[in-house]
Amino acid sequence: MASESGKLWGGRFVGAVDPIMEKFNASITYDRQLWEVDVQGSKAYSRGLEKAGLLTKAEMDQILHGLDKVAEEWAQGTFKLNPNDEDIHTANERRLKVVTDLRLWMRQTCSTLSGLLWELIRTMVDRAEAECDVLFPGYTHLQRAQPIRWSHWILSHAVALTRDSERLLEVRKRIDVLPLGSGAIAGNPLGVDRELLRAGGGGWATWLGERRPFPVLQPSPASSHPQELSFRAITLNSMDATSERDFVAEFLFWASLCMTHLSRMAEDLILYGTKEFSFVQLSDAYSTGSSLMPQKKNPDSLELIRSKAGRVFGRCAGLLMTLKGLPSTYNKDLQEDKEAVFEVSDTMSAVLQVATGVISTLQIHRENMGQALSPDMLATDLAYYLVRKGMPFRQAHEASGKAVFMAETKGVALNQLSLQELQTISSPSLRSPLFLSDVNHVWDYGHSVEQYGALGGTARSSVDWQIRQVRALLRAQQA
Amino acid sequence: MASESGKLWGGRFVGAVDPIMEKFNASITYDRQLWEVDVQGSKAYSRGLEKAGLLTKAEMDQILHGLDKVAEEWAQGTFKLNPNDEDIHTANERRLKVVTDLRLWMRQTCSTLSGLLWELIRTMVDRAEAECDVLFPGYTHLQRAQPIRWSHWILSHAVALTRDSERLLEVRKRIDVLPLGSGAIAGNPLGVDRELLRAGGGGWATWLGERRPFPVLQPSPASSHPQELSFRAITLNSMDATSERDFVAEFLFWASLCMTHLSRMAEDLILYGTKEFSFVQLSDAYSTGSSLMPQKKNPDSLELIRSKAGRVFGRCAGLLMTLKGLPSTYNKDLQEDKEAVFEVSDTMSAVLQVATGVISTLQIHRENMGQALSPDMLATDLAYYLVRKGMPFRQAHEASGKAVFMAETKGVALNQLSLQELQTISSPSLRSPLFLSDVNHVWDYGHSVEQYGALGGTARSSVDWQIRQVRALLRAQQA
Amino acid sequence: MASESGKLWGGRFVGAVDPIMEKFNASITYDRQLWEVDVQGSKAYSRGLEKAGLLTKAEMDQILHGLDKVAEEWAQGTFKLNPNDEDIHTANERRLKVVTDLRLWMRQTCSTLSGLLWELIRTMVDRAEAECDVLFPGYTHLQRAQPIRWSHWILSHAVALTRDSERLLEVRKRIDVLPLGSGAIAGNPLGVDRELLRAGGGGWATWLGERRPFPVLQPSPASSHPQELSFRAITLNSMDATSERDFVAEFLFWASLCMTHLSRMAEDLILYGTKEFSFVQLSDAYSTGSSLMPQKKNPDSLELIRSKAGRVFGRCAGLLMTLKGLPSTYNKDLQEDKEAVFEVSDTMSAVLQVATGVISTLQIHRENMGQALSPDMLATDLAYYLVRKGMPFRQAHEASGKAVFMAETKGVALNQLSLQELQTISSPSLRSPLFLSDVNHVWDYGHSVEQYGALGGTARSSVDWQIRQVRALLRAQQA
Amino acid sequence: MASESGKLWGGRFVGAVDPIMEKFNASITYDRQLWEVDVQGSKAYSRGLEKAGLLTKAEMDQILHGLDKVAEEWAQGTFKLNPNDEDIHTANERRLKVVTDLRLWMRQTCSTLSGLLWELIRTMVDRAEAECDVLFPGYTHLQRAQPIRWSHWILSHAVALTRDSERLLEVRKRIDVLPLGSGAIAGNPLGVDRELLRAGGGGWATWLGERRPFPVLQPSPASSHPQELSFRAITLNSMDATSERDFVAEFLFWASLCMTHLSRMAEDLILYGTKEFSFVQLSDAYSTGSSLMPQKKNPDSLELIRSKAGRVFGRCAGLLMTLKGLPSTYNKDLQEDKEAVFEVSDTMSAVLQVATGVISTLQIHRENMGQALSPDMLATDLAYYLVRKGMPFRQAHEASGKAVFMAETKGVALNQLSLQELQTISSPSLRSPLFLSDVNHVWDYGHSVEQYGALGGTARSSVDWQIRQVRALLRAQQA
Repeated sequence: MASESGKLWGGRFVGAVDPIMEKFNASITYDRQLWEVDVQGSKAYSRGLEKAGLLTKAEMDQILHGLDKVAEEWAQGTFKLNPNDEDIHTANERRLKVVTDLRLWMRQTCSTLSGLLWELIRTMVDRAEAECDVLFPGYTHLQRAQPIRWSHWILSHAVALTRDSERLLEVRKRIDVLPLGSGAIAGNPLGVDRELLRAGGGGWATWLGERRPFPVLQPSPASSHPQELSFRAITLNSMDATSERDFVAEFLFWASLCMTHLSRMAEDLILYGTKEFSFVQLSDAYSTGSSLMPQKKNPDSLELIRSKAGRVFGRCAGLLMTLKGLPSTYNKDLQEDKEAVFEVSDTMSAVLQVATGVISTLQIHRENMGQALSPDMLATDLAYYLVRKGMPFRQAHEASGKAVFMAETKGVALNQLSLQELQTISSPSLRSPLFLSDVNHVWDYGHSVEQYGALGGTARSSVDWQIRQVRALLRAQQA
Repeated sequence: MASESGKLWGGRFVGAVDPIMEKFNASITYDRQLWEVDVQGSKAYSRGLEKAGLLTKAEMDQILHGLDKVAEEWAQGTFKLNPNDEDIHTANERRLKVVTDLRLWMRQTCSTLSGLLWELIRTMVDRAEAECDVLFPGYTHLQRAQPIRWSHWILSHAVALTRDSERLLEVRKRIDVLPLGSGAIAGNPLGVDRELLRAGGGGWATWLGERRPFPVLQPSPASSHPQELSFRAITLNSMDATSERDFVAEFLFWASLCMTHLSRMAEDLILYGTKEFSFVQLSDAYSTGSSLMPQKKNPDSLELIRSKAGRVFGRCAGLLMTLKGLPSTYNKDLQEDKEAVFEVSDTMSAVLQVATGVISTLQIHRENMGQALSPDMLATDLAYYLVRKGMPFRQAHEASGKAVFMAETKGVALNQLSLQELQTISSPSLRSPLFLSDVNHVWDYGHSVEQYGALGGTARSSVDWQIRQVRALLRAQQA
Repeated sequence: MASESGKLWGGRFVGAVDPIMEKFNASITYDRQLWEVDVQGSKAYSRGLEKAGLLTKAEMDQILHGLDKVAEEWAQGTFKLNPNDEDIHTANERRLKVVTDLRLWMRQTCSTLSGLLWELIRTMVDRAEAECDVLFPGYTHLQRAQPIRWSHWILSHAVALTRDSERLLEVRKRIDVLPLGSGAIAGNPLGVDRELLRAGGGGWATWLGERRPFPVLQPSPASSHPQELSFRAITLNSMDATSERDFVAEFLFWASLCMTHLSRMAEDLILYGTKEFSFVQLSDAYSTGSSLMPQKKNPDSLELIRSKAGRVFGRCAGLLMTLKGLPSTYNKDLQEDKEAVFEVSDTMSAVLQVATGVISTLQIHRENMGQALSPDMLATDLAYYLVRKGMPFRQAHEASGKAVFMAETKGVALNQLSLQELQTISSPSLRSPLFLSDVNHVWDYGHSVEQYGALGGTARSSVDWQIRQVRALLRAQQA
Repeated sequence: MASESGKLWGGRFVGAVDPIMEKFNASITYDRQLWEVDVQGSKAYSRGLEKAGLLTKAEMDQILHGLDKVAEEWAQGTFKLNPNDEDIHTANERRLKVVTDLRLWMRQTCSTLSGLLWELIRTMVDRAEAECDVLFPGYTHLQRAQPIRWSHWILSHAVALTRDSERLLEVRKRIDVLPLGSGAIAGNPLGVDRELLRAGGGGWATWLGERRPFPVLQPSPASSHPQELSFRAITLNSMDATSERDFVAEFLFWASLCMTHLSRMAEDLILYGTKEFSFVQLSDAYSTGSSLMPQKKNPDSLELIRSKAGRVFGRCAGLLMTLKGLPSTYNKDLQEDKEAVFEVSDTMSAVLQVATGVISTLQIHRENMGQALSPDMLATDLAYYLVRKGMPFRQAHEASGKAVFMAETKGVALNQLSLQELQTISSPSLRSPLFLSDVNHVWDYGHSVEQYGALGGTARSSVDWQIRQVRALLRAQQA
């Protein structure tokens, strides 16, 4: 019988539920996560309402007492949903309430992750500023290419992260839309003023007043500012509002792309930390030793960062596959959203903090960096030398290539070719040789990097400009 | 010998290239796609330069002639890259040039796809406005839930697409950043003024002037407006500029999410077009018959739309996997970007146009839609009836559930239960029955939908509001 | 100082570990899962060794006591890895031990999942056998195509699952390979006889004897049969053995493909359970009601099955991305394998059991199925009728199509066209009409299905053959 | 009118088809690929039939002429499907025919790819055998771990590829199942003997005989052996047969996993080919120079291999998403299968050949490899030394760690610590020191590798055993 089963839809059903199905169906894992926030916020809010005269002291005390009991039961794992908690509002808005809770939770998470991301970027920029004078090889295809500033490398990753930061604000903007009040499939028949709800404060009061004694919604827990209760906009269509998970998919993709940046940076640092490169050394706080090989120190932190790119993307892929081809409005399939969000949020939080720790404690070996610069990396500069003497670049490139080949053949460094040897290469058909004794200036690495002064290059002025640009971006995003 | 191989890096290499490797390495497929744009734009631009006095008539003619020849050779598949085309600029900026071409191509594609998306949304909104009076069942979990307006269904999908439209503008914004002039790994040593380049017009002229006779870059072909040559910003770091593919990943994800919206709409329409639902009928222009079964008409267009969600997402997944863990700066792996972009662009263009065609020619069967409404879908309204009489919702829901169960047991429609029968359910313990003869008003579907007047609901006023909102959004996005 | 930090590699490190890094690095979640198995098996095994005379009673008691304490501590969450647990074997084989544990765990899981899969298939075949006489529409493109047996539909999904069952045995075969004893990177220097280890029994005894008091490895917990300790083969190369996760990727993909089968079956059943189709009704044990709409019963179980296809595939995608481009041998990234395996195993176990429950309790509405058959679904049979009279199929198809069109135009069923009307279609140019009064036999659905007697068709004999084939496959796989 | 539209289903449709829809719907791309095989095979087969007396000479000539014309038209792009090509067989079996063609094509492709894979493995094993005496560092976490044989590294990748080879045979086994003759949805009503069809030869003749003049099916083109026409089994259920794409998904996943192996090998080689490692040098045939930097030689071939892992996996992900949640039997969505198969086949073929070329032409720098071995990589051996003297391993590991720390602090190599220094570490509390003058033997790299003699290790005997094992596997797979 209906009344015996104790379920809200008990009026009709006959027959028991398969316990495996029940467990399968259960949302307990993420309910817990959202409920902790829910209770915490509701208490703060009820106090505000009492102050505003919308609840009597007695009513407030009753609510607070009820919420305390709920919190206690959750903490002890004994909480059971009381059917009487459900009223006309929760029935009509049950799905929307969960979506609203998720949006509130994610809005807060985006703010937290933005903060962690800014801290990481700031740490990188600070380091770039402090170690501007360190030179080392820039690589393309993992082959030594040209001398660059160490700061230029740091900034290349910091700049990538500023795009993640910008994107996260856009994702947050689309999370910050209130579905509540639009009702289930057909809509809300109770004349709720959604704009008032959206604006928070008084709107919530009205809403809450109607549906005592159990608040559907709460402000984000970390804040008591009334503006924290407001949303940027309201959802436009009730069918779309219950079933769209764009904001979840966007968040998961944001995390996936951010993780590819961090995994690329981790890859660089793992390489730079090998015996063979020996440019950097991880702090012991971010390394692990080997239980077999006493001499080893493994870059576990960086490998974990790199590995998480897969996990995070897997969640994004999984959600999109779940969404694909689903009929519109609510289907139970959508329940998959929350675990993905929670896992990815936790992962991003840990990864960003570990990355900040790695960068801030990383030791660099300036001398090794310097010694890794070799004259052959100045072959392009040698070609430029000839260009400045009037030779077309293509010929200059070929001439420089021949010089590299000659040095290799002779087993000497490129800068050890004699002037005579160089002259045999550059201009057999020219009467006046292009290579003169001033070619020696080419072999100065410090001079080399200063050539690259166009915005975005590795010259000191350009690196300074990059630092200013990134700092300005951060200020603008935090505003 | 170097000079024999005819390659730019010929100064040094010894040994032939594996032909399979050569084919593997080749970028011919996408070079063709980008070159067609390249030549077209370069011609238009050269004419502009001549008018501006930056090229002489003779110089312009020489360039136009050269470009015509290039175009002809491309068309005939006989074009060969002339080593002399490479000068100091292209060597230093080769990677950036390809990235810039890709950004220009994608900027144009985003505009095109935005236009197609707007047309689809407009078509949907027009239809929603025209057929506002048609009622049919709203579903959740594919079970009939409540009566709604047909327009409310259309708008639920249109609203989802407005988010795609908003996101595409954001993606375009990040595409619209100029990498050119930042140089390869270390930077650009030629003192190029990147801000002038970014601003277009004069900047390009300077740049082009330096590197005649072959323009590196072209305006987007469809336009001769000078502002089309400008970019929103310049890239900040040369190492990041050559290797970041965020804008590609973002575009692919944008398409993936947009495709899940379209595949969900397609799924709905496929269902509504089954014999069992019979709500809609696809135009013959978007159906295919069966070569075996003469009575069949298959919704191939909708199935293709649904299927492409997989293909598009596959490209997004593929690119992210390629990017993951890559060392920073340029690696050949990045060559995977272009085919993904071209295929996804083509697919999106076709899908959006087909979807517009489907929606604009779709026939709806109003009478079937109406007949699919049944009194049990008003069970919620029956509960609301009791609520208005003062019964708590939970009890009202249970009472309504009992009425549904009684009707099922008796084998009659919910509205065929007699007043006496209803009264036995609602309030056995109450002296004064809640169900009175006015319960008959509940069974009016037109009256039912008008209850849902909160913003986002299915009442006429709310549907009108939705239409105004979407139109306003489109106007704002097109501005 | 090293000795203070209490870590095995303590001899060298200076500096603390970031607590977030520590948590990030921790394998506690999956260690617990594997440890529970570990302790349980080790106890059973130690008893066996004592019986075999390889341990003294006192030694055994010491081990059992130690293991009991470990189990107790794990249960209370107070277990701490005692550095002294590590001996020369665990140091050299630490990575391999974890991989071996995982292989043992997965071998057992594969057996469990095989059993659940067989039970599901058996349930389906039993049902197919019992309801062989029920006819209903077969669909292609979700359009009614031809009458088929209900059993034919069930078998179409059962047959797909037999492929999953076959594949799972192959995956298990590749899991059943012993890495232990091959040592870390360079190999094992202790002269271990890996073939003896592989064969179990005596091999383990030797191994265990050497490294008392703490057994590295345990038999699978559910069994005390000595053959359970043996493996099919040993790994061939130590570097590959520590780092290959093919067996994990294969398992995750196996689950992904199996889930697409189950999600397709779920999709069919969701559709068949709509009001519009009304072919089947889910048991209450696998449905959920609506808290808002008393008349609704939602197919949550089927929606959850469908949704899990995304989650499971996401884990597969995530792992492959993590593996891609990783340097060979062990990298910490590989730690991502276990959570994926555990989550997917749990999901598959629940999904298979719920699917079995759904199928075994599903109610079918024979009368609705019969009423859904309509004469137009026999249009192909009508064409066959003409073919048997000597008309080329293409013409016959066109003639039948015209009959369908005529019936639609006239608003009658296809079988209500008069003989005269049919004759105007079939053979305007022929003197003797092909349509004769025997065309009436075409309209018998029972007769229609019996035509399709080729193996794999819907005739009774073919359905019986399918049932025999699937049963034979199951017997062969269980052997 | 039907007859005007020229389509097979022309009897009924009214209205034109949207040209974009038509293009969207078109299967021309993959039809071409399958048709080329189709025509080629049909010609060979017709000749066989004539010889067997099943076709007259005149009939054969007519067929050959027709096929020649078709081939010519395909080549010129002017081929148009002649409606008269469709007979009762193709109508009933259209979907199955395409699936059968695809299975034939893929069966052949699997054989081709198996051959290429075997060649790659053989090349690797040959090299491993030839260069067995070369030692270099083995890495874990990209940190130098222990000295190993270069052959041991090669074999670690070869062994991984043998699993791919084994899996491909299993995939091929499931491709090699004949769907033809099972008919569309309800089955085949024409009494076809599918077992005869499966067995090839006579079966095909019967089938073909019935449906002249256009053979539905052809033997695989590369062979005239009659057994090539036979299949391993027939499909069991007509509804499953038209819509299951397990064999496609399996193939795509096979390729994805094989690509992760190749991308991991490529990653190793890219690292080993950096200036910093300098262990290997790619042949010029598999490298590309830089147009800017004359000194550079980039490992483009390896980067392309690595990059393709993403592309191939993307196709796998895309197909699975397309399949997920699809209603059973044929839906147009399934058309996505072929382009994925063709692209992935082409990619795998190129990648396997390039990888073989890379391995066979790779130059190794033995002297650099040797110089990269350093005494600290023998720290584990030092611990083993102490273990052999009776010290528990944990203490030995700590003692060895202290030696490493001491050497680092003193700035000397581990083997340069004096006996006295070592003795202060090992046993301060012991009267008799464990370190004696024989500790010098520890520092011999050749002696070190020979310790690791357990199967799977890096000792010469074990490497030889690995080579024998892999060769035996290849022989068994080719049988």
